[in-house]
Amino acid sequence: MNLSADFLAQLRGLFPADALLTETSDCYAYGYDNSRGQVTPDAVVFAQTHEQILALVRLCRETRVPLTARGRGTNTTGATVPISGGVVLSFERMNRILRIDVDNRYAVVEAGVLNGDLQTALASLGFFWPPDPTSAPFCSIGGNLACNSAGPRAVKYGSPRENTLGLRAITGAGEEFRCGVYTSKGATGYDLTRLLIGSEGTLAIITEATLKLTPLAAAKRTMRATYDSIESAAAAVARIMAHPVTPCALEFLDGEALRLARSHAGDAIPQAAAMLLIEVDGQPLALPEAVEAVSRAARGEGLIELIIAETAAQVAVLWSARKALSPALRKIAPKKINEDVVVPVSRLPELIAGLRTISTKYQIPIVNFGHAGNGNMHVNLLYQPENPQQAANAPDCLSAVFALVLELDGTLSGEHGIGLAKRDFLPLALDPVTLQLMRRIKAQFDPDGILNPGKLLPSE
Amino acid sequence: MNLSADFLAQLRGLFPADALLTETSDCYAYGYDNSRGQVTPDAVVFAQTHEQILALVRLCRETRVPLTARGRGTNTTGATVPISGGVVLSFERMNRILRIDVDNRYAVVEAGVLNGDLQTALASLGFFWPPDPTSAPFCSIGGNLACNSAGPRAVKYGSPRENTLGLRAITGAGEEFRCGVYTSKGATGYDLTRLLIGSEGTLAIITEATLKLTPLAAAKRTMRATYDSIESAAAAVARIMAHPVTPCALEFLDGEALRLARSHAGDAIPQAAAMLLIEVDGQPLALPEAVEAVSRAARGEGLIELIIAETAAQVAVLWSARKALSPALRKIAPKKINEDVVVPVSRLPELIAGLRTISTKYQIPIVNFGHAGNGNMHVNLLYQPENPQQAANAPDCLSAVFALVLELDGTLSGEHGIGLAKRDFLPLALDPVTLQLMRRIKAQFDPDGILNPGKLLPSE
Repeated sequence: MNLSADFLAQLRGLFPADALLTETSDCYAYGYDNSRGQVTPDAVVFAQTHEQILALVRLCRETRVPLTARGRGTNTTGATVPISGGVVLSFERMNRILRIDVDNRYAVVEAGVLNGDLQTALASLGFFWPPDPTSAPFCSIGGNLACNSAGPRAVKYGSPRENTLGLRAITGAGEEFRCGVYTSKGATGYDLTRLLIGSEGTLAIITEATLKLTPLAAAKRTMRATYDSIESAAAAVARIMAHPVTPCALEFLDGEALRLARSHAGDAIPQAAAMLLIEVDGQPLALPEAVEAVSRAARGEGLIELIIAETAAQVAVLWSARKALSPALRKIAPKKINEDVVVPVSRLPELIAGLRTISTKYQIPIVNFGHAGNGNMHVNLLYQPENPQQAANAPDCLSAVFALVLELDGTLSGEHGIGLAKRDFLPLALDPVTLQLMRRIKAQFDPDGILNPGKLLPSE
Repeated sequence: MNLSADFLAQLRGLFPADALLTETSDCYAYGYDNSRGQVTPDAVVFAQTHEQILALVRLCRETRVPLTARGRGTNTTGATVPISGGVVLSFERMNRILRIDVDNRYAVVEAGVLNGDLQTALASLGFFWPPDPTSAPFCSIGGNLACNSAGPRAVKYGSPRENTLGLRAITGAGEEFRCGVYTSKGATGYDLTRLLIGSEGTLAIITEATLKLTPLAAAKRTMRATYDSIESAAAAVARIMAHPVTPCALEFLDGEALRLARSHAGDAIPQAAAMLLIEVDGQPLALPEAVEAVSRAARGEGLIELIIAETAAQVAVLWSARKALSPALRKIAPKKINEDVVVPVSRLPELIAGLRTISTKYQIPIVNFGHAGNGNMHVNLLYQPENPQQAANAPDCLSAVFALVLELDGTLSGEHGIGLAKRDFLPLALDPVTLQLMRRIKAQFDPDGILNPGKLLPSE
């Protein structure tokens, strides 16, 4: 679309020259995210206050100009690609931590605060905010909330929906409101806070959030367990999670992922058909007992070796290798399809076996790693677009993955969200009535459909 | 209202004679709840299947007959009093535990299952569902979900919103749907699960729920700490909650509550200006460290005595006295106003001091006890309707309590919900926009307003 001269003039009235981009070349970089989709927006603004955003939404609504909120564009589903053009609202300059209230275990932050910056500020006070995507150092809290993004710690500490007390936001109709509480309990009306979390900027724009803080555990131990088959490792995950001691991380890497991890971190990463990276935290005196309980569950058929990391350096190597996986896979297969499906943990062995069958059938290598304690697997379809057979098979291969996941009582996304990439698969996962209710809710918050159009909900 | 002969004939087609009440004398007991409000419904039905309820909702919608879902009527806000008459749908015969999946840490239950029955079934498997209202032995899971009811354990383990994975439900338009997941993580569309939880049967009727289970801790210790002033006790609560070890219960009783508790449990209950009942749970080896950490925080100005219960019998006495409080207060003041306000824990001393001032000003005794770890205080206004001055002052006294709570960044309800009792106070706690969004959402789920009319949302 082309923005009218009048619209641009009004935009200039709201944002100073150094907070507004309108040249295509300047706007280009705000047109993509980690999905590798790209559509250049017509303008990019850098807001610094809630009031600026309120005026912006009202202007966009009056003129029916699409508006896409953007944290740092680290999401993988195209949720921040402005496919209808219009304005991208970047939160990168709206990044103040407004309050940290340790006594009441909450922090109030602007939506553009980086997850990593918040964690640093909290750690010095003995607290953390549980959601910890791999991109934590450079992804924003607002983006985490929009996508309900989590990470390894969710297995014990939950996702943004379990760790957010309240929000300040602006609907697509340009109405500002607050929802939620400053307390750890509340039963005062409908839960709009959780409704906005995971809505990917399609209902309202979150400008400020009150986050629930958790005390940092006093001690942590990290283990790695290797297995002679991925099925054995998956079975071990199910055993560990059936046990009362909940690990604070339970990550899975298959053999191919391990090979890649070795290329990043060297011999510190073992060779095996699969590896689990297990962490337990708690009070120092309790840890040996917890480690022993988890170790017992990790042992069993197919275990090659169970090692407890002895030094901080060993722990750092394990994690850096794990965290390097996604970018490393991107290098090998720039067009890889990276899914984040979830199944109940006891179904992981079936998922893994099913994925192997699918990989063979469609002749597309599949590499799996992820947050096994939640049954949340990053399934990477490494197809090469220049291989005509693989390129032709990729869509069916992906459909087969989703069908398998749903058959196993799972769901399409654990932490990436739906965005553009999975939008058209949503009807497979949700009842028609459920989907209609979501559409009707969307219409109440954003009657003209200006907020992040074309995302999350499939077209009717 | 009077139900038409045609409506009654259709109702008889849906429910056998032993599952349908239409005589006023039979229906009477289904017209009240623990709020002591009472309006006799025109009919009461006892559903046993989702399909029966679907047909019932469709019938009620066609004929515009109000329909009020009822668990066991233990709520305190009038949320299940059928103020517009019509049909009460009782869940007392829809009480099957459909599945307990320990490996995946969830249970699927019909909405009428009693909280206590579920806990018993789970305990033998080493698990529990965290919400534990005082009425647990005789309140239903559906009611817990409708009101987001919690209890002492919420301080560590959360409320229904943090402990529910998915729901099966029927909108007021007679549309059936499922929402949520069977997994511990999910980012697949808007969060309708949490939207229904706490909506008090005004959006949809929950027929089935998938609940997230938590492993039972291996060990628990119970302490009681007495203080020479309620302010000292409130300050101790704030100190305990600022500490990394989160107790699994942190209950507060003021002096008057203690006197009542003694009348129930005898000398085992100490005399003091205030008492804290503190529990910590975890692995056996870790407990002494946790007890020591919490004890350190509990000590301080005004502490009279800190005692660790040594026997199960001592623990049982402490809890039975605590749990007897609400009924005991009801005996003293049958028309007492029992609120469940919440403030951030560090504001508890201000809340307690403010309540004392309010009590003096309006000449109405106020007794306070509750879930102090969440800042969730049961504030009991013990007015006697036969005392004309107290009766005249009661509404202003209650308004003053709410004004104080909101001034302290608190909220109207922590776990009882809004119902009828607090409906007209909702605009004090919520933005007009927030309230309008709730109304618009209500209209999408229940376009003709047949579900539990007159509850939660104030009339426009």
